[in-house]
Amino acid sequence: MSGVASLRVRYCECDPMNVVHHASYIPWLEIGRTELLRTSGISYAQLEKEGVFLVIVKLEAKYRRPALYDDVVEVRTRVKTGEAGAPKSRVKIEHEYEIVVTERGGQKVEIVAVIASTTLACVDKEGRPRALPEWLMVG
Amino acid sequence: MSGVASLRVRYCECDPMNVVHHASYIPWLEIGRTELLRTSGISYAQLEKEGVFLVIVKLEAKYRRPALYDDVVEVRTRVKTGEAGAPKSRVKIEHEYEIVVTERGGQKVEIVAVIASTTLACVDKEGRPRALPEWLMVG
Amino acid sequence: MSGVASLRVRYCECDPMNVVHHASYIPWLEIGRTELLRTSGISYAQLEKEGVFLVIVKLEAKYRRPALYDDVVEVRTRVKTGEAGAPKSRVKIEHEYEIVVTERGGQKVEIVAVIASTTLACVDKEGRPRALPEWLMVG
Amino acid sequence: MSGVASLRVRYCECDPMNVVHHASYIPWLEIGRTELLRTSGISYAQLEKEGVFLVIVKLEAKYRRPALYDDVVEVRTRVKTGEAGAPKSRVKIEHEYEIVVTERGGQKVEIVAVIASTTLACVDKEGRPRALPEWLMVG
Repeated sequence: MSGVASLRVRYCECDPMNVVHHASYIPWLEIGRTELLRTSGISYAQLEKEGVFLVIVKLEAKYRRPALYDDVVEVRTRVKTGEAGAPKSRVKIEHEYEIVVTERGGQKVEIVAVIASTTLACVDKEGRPRALPEWLMVG
Repeated sequence: MSGVASLRVRYCECDPMNVVHHASYIPWLEIGRTELLRTSGISYAQLEKEGVFLVIVKLEAKYRRPALYDDVVEVRTRVKTGEAGAPKSRVKIEHEYEIVVTERGGQKVEIVAVIASTTLACVDKEGRPRALPEWLMVG
Repeated sequence: MSGVASLRVRYCECDPMNVVHHASYIPWLEIGRTELLRTSGISYAQLEKEGVFLVIVKLEAKYRRPALYDDVVEVRTRVKTGEAGAPKSRVKIEHEYEIVVTERGGQKVEIVAVIASTTLACVDKEGRPRALPEWLMVG
Repeated sequence: MSGVASLRVRYCECDPMNVVHHASYIPWLEIGRTELLRTSGISYAQLEKEGVFLVIVKLEAKYRRPALYDDVVEVRTRVKTGEAGAPKSRVKIEHEYEIVVTERGGQKVEIVAVIASTTLACVDKEGRPRALPEWLMVG
């Protein structure tokens, strides 16, 4: 399962070095996995209403080339699967991401800005671990 | 001159009251006026390269109804003009905004969340006031 | 009732113009009024536990001089009172703020960056207007 | 070389799950290493003026227990050193962090919220790799 979310870099996401601040990329990962979820027919907002909360337990990011103000970037997200296409866990879900600048100054480009991965755990409203819904686990 | 920018509310833009945090709306206004500028054929990024910087000198916001996580909102922006359609000043530019929730939970809605206005001043790279470029002033 | 909160400007709060982004000041106002509340012996966190929620209905900010990265700033906050020192409303509370740079590059300074005001309304957990607690209204 | 920076959780740093949003911790790491730098007698602001820029190339974070609104947290930061107390590289600098909640609801606590590490590279104004200043490398 993979998906692409597209967004334009905001001025307030950039810092005095004239590049996207490294912390500003992190919410984009969330957008990436949320939009991926939406393509499978459900919104994370609905998920929460049903008592399923996904909390992040691990984050890794490698910063390759900076994204700049007004760039268009794509967040390319996929669910990491184990052997035979099956996710590796019933309580955790791992995503891998590439954040790629695809437009700069009106020109099409392909610049990998950030490579990242996250691990989410599934909890109920009280924060106790619970199994992922079956349908979320289709690799 | 008026324009519409559309965006989806991010999870990190919401607070423990389950609504968009009041400070999270402010960068959306910036998106509104930037996209309005783009429709006139220039990006703010280009503007800065030409030594024209727009700095905010005044901001007013009235919060009417909260926007929620995952809502789609429109930022409707227009340049405030004086008599006979002319902008009121050669060094300042005023914008008026409506932030309107247009989709919630998959349903079309029309909920005015925020009414706002800003005044920008035009400065050069050293921060000294300078006249707005002629073409920016077309009402 | 007035109070002072002190904080140091974060790198991520600054933008490519090398100054604090105008939206970054807004959470500082919240810190200002929260710390003012704390001096009266209660935290906003406690207030929420008791079912008292303060939501912002109006915000005004005038930007005078930019604050810079690593500046120390003071948020000077006071409750706006009506005649005879009494607050003007039982359901709304108005604050006035000055954000002042007090240290830059190791030197003591006194630079007014932003003048602001906010109006908060008091609501219950369901978002319905309710009267402010008596003790909150002491001017 | 190690140091401690203390801060209070802001309302806008929390999300609808009533906890600090996972992206909000990342700027705190920056505060941790900046304050550590300051204890060695120099500010990062000065460093930039001298043409030394530190850019993040890698970030890892493990989220253990959530920090909450109004918590006081400590960011405990140390420079990771190699054999014999020497840093491992002349162009990179690694930091390790613990973000610990030390006060909640007026009570002293000791709750490890996040364990993190970052790798910074040293670049000049044009973004080219350059050696770390000698004095920065004292382990």
